[in-house]
Amino acid sequence: MSVRPAVEADVARILILIRELAEYERALDQVRATEEDLLNTLFGHNPQVFAHVVEVDNVVIGIAIWHLNYSTWLGKHGMYLEDLYVDPKYRGEGHGMELLKSLAQICVSRGYERFQWWVLDWNTSALELYKSLGAVGMDEWTVYRLSGDALQEFGRNG
Amino acid sequence: MSVRPAVEADVARILILIRELAEYERALDQVRATEEDLLNTLFGHNPQVFAHVVEVDNVVIGIAIWHLNYSTWLGKHGMYLEDLYVDPKYRGEGHGMELLKSLAQICVSRGYERFQWWVLDWNTSALELYKSLGAVGMDEWTVYRLSGDALQEFGRNG
Repeated sequence: MSVRPAVEADVARILILIRELAEYERALDQVRATEEDLLNTLFGHNPQVFAHVVEVDNVVIGIAIWHLNYSTWLGKHGMYLEDLYVDPKYRGEGHGMELLKSLAQICVSRGYERFQWWVLDWNTSALELYKSLGAVGMDEWTVYRLSGDALQEFGRNG
Repeated sequence: MSVRPAVEADVARILILIRELAEYERALDQVRATEEDLLNTLFGHNPQVFAHVVEVDNVVIGIAIWHLNYSTWLGKHGMYLEDLYVDPKYRGEGHGMELLKSLAQICVSRGYERFQWWVLDWNTSALELYKSLGAVGMDEWTVYRLSGDALQEFGRNG
């Protein structure tokens, strides 16, 4: 397997791939992350977000960024996959599956019973892959987000 | 404000409220968490999940269980609310809003730009409350979950 945990030297390449994924998701204008942000959050004190990378010929061509989530029903942590991306030039070679499998192995070895992620409803190739693994869409639920001015106003003290 | 971070002595009461919420969500049979699980994950070494409670007459009548999430686009953490529940006997008195506001204050003070949670699509009273705060449904996305035998099989080594 050419998957390994990311190291600090990967950060510049990780940011390039994050930006490519955002472009695919039609949201490049929303990317504000810098290399320093990634260094701080992935490799600072007591990190709570993690990255795995997949390499071909010593070049990082895919990334998986993940963190823990939690189930109150199980009383246990699980894994949440924030981003999965493989450089389009290397698609169809199983690298996305290698990344997913590495993370699933971490889940099994640590006793995490749920491995979750979001999918854009129009990303049919990804949906097919995920369903082929036995992943199930949580169709009864919708994610709500409070952000921007609404969050600032509601979260103001007093 | 009667909202405060949970302490170890709250765990028995928190579990009762988790079970009540699961019953409301028609899933009580799926609750396997024990008091020991909650003690370990909320109050063990380096916890990565947190609870706030709201009290009336020194009794915990509402809970919010949350953890960090992450945005690769922002390069920053945000907050994910796993469970929010208020004892039905105390509904309509603003306790859910007090809990939400306390968490939003944490977001603002720490610079978390996104405060997120899931909502069951049929929970119209909750949906109305969230929309009134300016929260937005991420309708283009669906959460996928790999668990049970499918996760065990995919995550097996070798």
